[in-house]
Amino acid sequence: MSGALNLVNLFHNETNPVVLEPGETLFKAGDAGDAMYVVLEGEVEMTIHRRVVEVVRPGGLLGEMALVEKLPRVATAVAKTKARLATISERRFTFLVQNHPFFALHVMRVLSQRLRSMDNMIND
Amino acid sequence: MSGALNLVNLFHNETNPVVLEPGETLFKAGDAGDAMYVVLEGEVEMTIHRRVVEVVRPGGLLGEMALVEKLPRVATAVAKTKARLATISERRFTFLVQNHPFFALHVMRVLSQRLRSMDNMIND
Repeated sequence: MSGALNLVNLFHNETNPVVLEPGETLFKAGDAGDAMYVVLEGEVEMTIHRRVVEVVRPGGLLGEMALVEKLPRVATAVAKTKARLATISERRFTFLVQNHPFFALHVMRVLSQRLRSMDNMIND
Repeated sequence: MSGALNLVNLFHNETNPVVLEPGETLFKAGDAGDAMYVVLEGEVEMTIHRRVVEVVRPGGLLGEMALVEKLPRVATAVAKTKARLATISERRFTFLVQNHPFFALHVMRVLSQRLRSMDNMIND
């Protein structure tokens, strides 16, 4: 279970993607979160209190914290370029975690990497 | 998949737990990490650059970041009290993620909660 998972490949057949124009908001901090997203094309900027914490590019995840914890959004997500995203509802997320251990591991890695970079940010 | 998972129950039959005396170090920041741990009894203090970032209590996880990312330990783990821990090797972790989706979801939740509390810490 060590190979990197390319989520763009996993979701390339997405029939009903979310399409965002540059500057369009996907969600705001404080919103209820009932889905996470995989960026298929373009870039989405994540900000917390107006500070850019991440730019999510194709293959990247966003919105998974609210879904995993069933809590409001921590960050605001705004398209930096035109972007296309796959929506992973709670039901779909549950299916993926149950049937694709690689997906679960990938989500853990993404969370862990964010935590590590935040630890570095705090201590630098 | 919404119920909280009690890891103490999942590992209560642990036959070969790690036992730490108060003040004993489990691992140090920078160490290679080939296992994560579940606290079964006692408390383990996690520090990053001498700052206490978390006290892990029974049912809590530690060391999962190094295991998930295959990178060195970020934090130092020292027993605050006498403690008993179950060791989850990489092989066991892979088995758990593949066969117990609740376990995978639990690890995601723990990571997400840490990220959220760190976001709050930074912005407060």
